[in-house]
Amino acid sequence: MAETDFSSLSALFINATLKKSPQPSHTELLIDISKQIMTKRGVKTEVIRSIDQDIAAGVYPDMTKQGWDSDAWPEIYKKVEAADILVLAGPIWLGDNSSEMKKIIERLYANSSQLNEAGQYAYYGKVGGCLITGNEDGVKHCAMNVLYSLGHIGYTIPPQADAGWIGEAGPGPSYGDKTEDGKGRVGLDNDFTNRNTTFMTYNLMHLAKMLKVNGGIPAEGNQRTLWDDGNRFGFENPEYR
Amino acid sequence: MAETDFSSLSALFINATLKKSPQPSHTELLIDISKQIMTKRGVKTEVIRSIDQDIAAGVYPDMTKQGWDSDAWPEIYKKVEAADILVLAGPIWLGDNSSEMKKIIERLYANSSQLNEAGQYAYYGKVGGCLITGNEDGVKHCAMNVLYSLGHIGYTIPPQADAGWIGEAGPGPSYGDKTEDGKGRVGLDNDFTNRNTTFMTYNLMHLAKMLKVNGGIPAEGNQRTLWDDGNRFGFENPEYR
Amino acid sequence: MAETDFSSLSALFINATLKKSPQPSHTELLIDISKQIMTKRGVKTEVIRSIDQDIAAGVYPDMTKQGWDSDAWPEIYKKVEAADILVLAGPIWLGDNSSEMKKIIERLYANSSQLNEAGQYAYYGKVGGCLITGNEDGVKHCAMNVLYSLGHIGYTIPPQADAGWIGEAGPGPSYGDKTEDGKGRVGLDNDFTNRNTTFMTYNLMHLAKMLKVNGGIPAEGNQRTLWDDGNRFGFENPEYR
Amino acid sequence: MAETDFSSLSALFINATLKKSPQPSHTELLIDISKQIMTKRGVKTEVIRSIDQDIAAGVYPDMTKQGWDSDAWPEIYKKVEAADILVLAGPIWLGDNSSEMKKIIERLYANSSQLNEAGQYAYYGKVGGCLITGNEDGVKHCAMNVLYSLGHIGYTIPPQADAGWIGEAGPGPSYGDKTEDGKGRVGLDNDFTNRNTTFMTYNLMHLAKMLKVNGGIPAEGNQRTLWDDGNRFGFENPEYR
Repeated sequence: MAETDFSSLSALFINATLKKSPQPSHTELLIDISKQIMTKRGVKTEVIRSIDQDIAAGVYPDMTKQGWDSDAWPEIYKKVEAADILVLAGPIWLGDNSSEMKKIIERLYANSSQLNEAGQYAYYGKVGGCLITGNEDGVKHCAMNVLYSLGHIGYTIPPQADAGWIGEAGPGPSYGDKTEDGKGRVGLDNDFTNRNTTFMTYNLMHLAKMLKVNGGIPAEGNQRTLWDDGNRFGFENPEYR
Repeated sequence: MAETDFSSLSALFINATLKKSPQPSHTELLIDISKQIMTKRGVKTEVIRSIDQDIAAGVYPDMTKQGWDSDAWPEIYKKVEAADILVLAGPIWLGDNSSEMKKIIERLYANSSQLNEAGQYAYYGKVGGCLITGNEDGVKHCAMNVLYSLGHIGYTIPPQADAGWIGEAGPGPSYGDKTEDGKGRVGLDNDFTNRNTTFMTYNLMHLAKMLKVNGGIPAEGNQRTLWDDGNRFGFENPEYR
Repeated sequence: MAETDFSSLSALFINATLKKSPQPSHTELLIDISKQIMTKRGVKTEVIRSIDQDIAAGVYPDMTKQGWDSDAWPEIYKKVEAADILVLAGPIWLGDNSSEMKKIIERLYANSSQLNEAGQYAYYGKVGGCLITGNEDGVKHCAMNVLYSLGHIGYTIPPQADAGWIGEAGPGPSYGDKTEDGKGRVGLDNDFTNRNTTFMTYNLMHLAKMLKVNGGIPAEGNQRTLWDDGNRFGFENPEYR
Repeated sequence: MAETDFSSLSALFINATLKKSPQPSHTELLIDISKQIMTKRGVKTEVIRSIDQDIAAGVYPDMTKQGWDSDAWPEIYKKVEAADILVLAGPIWLGDNSSEMKKIIERLYANSSQLNEAGQYAYYGKVGGCLITGNEDGVKHCAMNVLYSLGHIGYTIPPQADAGWIGEAGPGPSYGDKTEDGKGRVGLDNDFTNRNTTFMTYNLMHLAKMLKVNGGIPAEGNQRTLWDDGNRFGFENPEYR
């Protein structure tokens, strides 16, 4: 079977680690695995470590208009707009997403009311995924929230669009840390994590390609502009039928 | 613009209410809205109220092989297999999904290790959605878990694939209950709920159609059989590169 | 320091495993650790594996009045009422609590509107905890929901009132399974799990004892009966002040 | 019945709104209700709007030692240390806690490994509560995470230790906004919200008082120092018994 041509696609990874550069981020190691597969297949990729940027907190597209001195988000949002694939990646703290991840989701949400030419929400036609690392617990809890947030604002979520690594219950080494004997690195041989990361990566590319070829989500029954103009697309209020 | 032909599609709604027939289910009223739109567009639909069925609890495809006297799931699973679209619908109790919803998800999960002809997980190529009703709080919490569960086992999640209704904080009338003045029915005029239900319905149909036309999720980089045989699809362990 | 006398206390553990007896439950092994500590300290304990009982689903105290043929809950609720300490324990499936756990919570909730002599909710004065086992992920997600549910209906939640065990990301042995070399049992040596289980057990006993000695939660500002009679305990509506 | 004397207690409310002063915070209005009841009863209270402070993100007690230019947290933590009661309050965005709330929880967590004189975690003996406002959905989801986080790091959670307000599904006025007819303010008459806020406030005071009178959580079976020294308080590994 001929390999699919993914070379028209672009992907943006946002790493919501709490560690500023140049501190090493365990999550970045997992991002690299997905990114490398994409790169091999011709996808244009970029990784942003958001905490290195001066991103304001808030739920408006540009927080400098809300009293903040500066805000790196409007520039980052241009990259989000340009990318067919968005992967939100981050660590687990107390079993939940990092505050940095929540800040990014809030800012993505702030832009979600913008509409495309068809009158659909701006993120329609794009696909989203999630990568999570921690040392003991919470991959699914975090991914559940990230993927739901992305879907809610208009992203399509391919099958099995998340992957992650955690160790056994309790404190311990994080993803990619040296093993106790110093000979290997923790988690990198985890078949489950590697398979899920690979499958996620391909499913993101497949759906992104399919949506691109089809011109996005067909514009029927899902255009905010038309709904607001009174179109109901066959919807009937049960009270009146 | 010509309307898309959805007549090749079929949809299954599972209502995870805790109320046995013939008690009225508020959730069913919301299901009806989505179902009716699909029916108008030629989609074959079916609704199952799961609590009316003798479905065993457990994480195996057939619980009669695990000591249960009977189990209606294997027959219901045939309907799940046959449907392009699956919508899980249910009520909110104490802010969370019903035990019945969790039981259905456990049984769907039990079948998830089955593979299709391409070696992908069985639910690949299908799309999933979610409808939630309650009287005060929790639509997103419940939908988050339902959609994540569906995605995790192989469903594709279209944009904005959930809808629901809840009232103001505190006890109060449920969806479709008579209003205090007896002249109307609660929630049925909620523009947000109606729009979200309509958009969800169309996005489910669009993605299901797109996946059907494309023969499902392309089988490359996501086949369990090939991974288990040692194929890595470009994945590289960062430790060794 | 003299040891506290806990001999006036009683504790009920409900095991919400999906496995019927006599199948072994991994969760039960963790329950045993907590139970044994309590027993040593004179606390009267009992463990119920709920799936062995014919407990109906629903949100009423007695489901036989709602069309169910039988319902073991009313008898079990008597044990809940009699116990100073309630520990809900269960497995993780797809990162979430079992349907059996949700069923138990729904039934506890059904009884929560009952009031004690002081007009407080029935569970006031009791303390709750949580034990979770799984093979890969989700202890905190599950415990978060269980403890919140218990608190919401009136239980006091002591510090660090949950414990659990999970293994590294991916499928693998469950708590107490034989290790690969057949010489040990998985998780039983996990210091984190053992410490948390021990601390949880003591904190449950300490708070239960303290509440018992103090006659429960003091009845001031929290009696549903008095609120409904118009008492406001110093509350002022900000609109009118 | 004589009123309990709460005048030895102090409470800190942290408002995790995303709005900087002097923008009005809906959440602050709900805080005021609880605060006012406490004040009337002699509790010393303070409210901090965290986004007005220059609090660094991270999981260390003082982020200036981790490369941040400044960090207001160490000073705020002194207030946390001094307070018997901590109430975390905030808004809902996309159904989840604000990034600001997560940042505060991360910082509280960073200090949680500190021990008191008895060798218990530093927050032992304190009580925690939660207030949430939003316009449509998510009070329980947010409170579940906040209360669990507080419990996990050592706070005791009284019964029904959360309250909140949300409106009917869909966008709409927030708590305290003018009603459409301009005559009232949304949510302020909600009996459920008012009762829950009052009960929460009293339960926080009752438990804080009880713990204070009893000298905190009794130090037996829950001291990290003693556990690390090899004490097991009756714990037995099931493998060896």
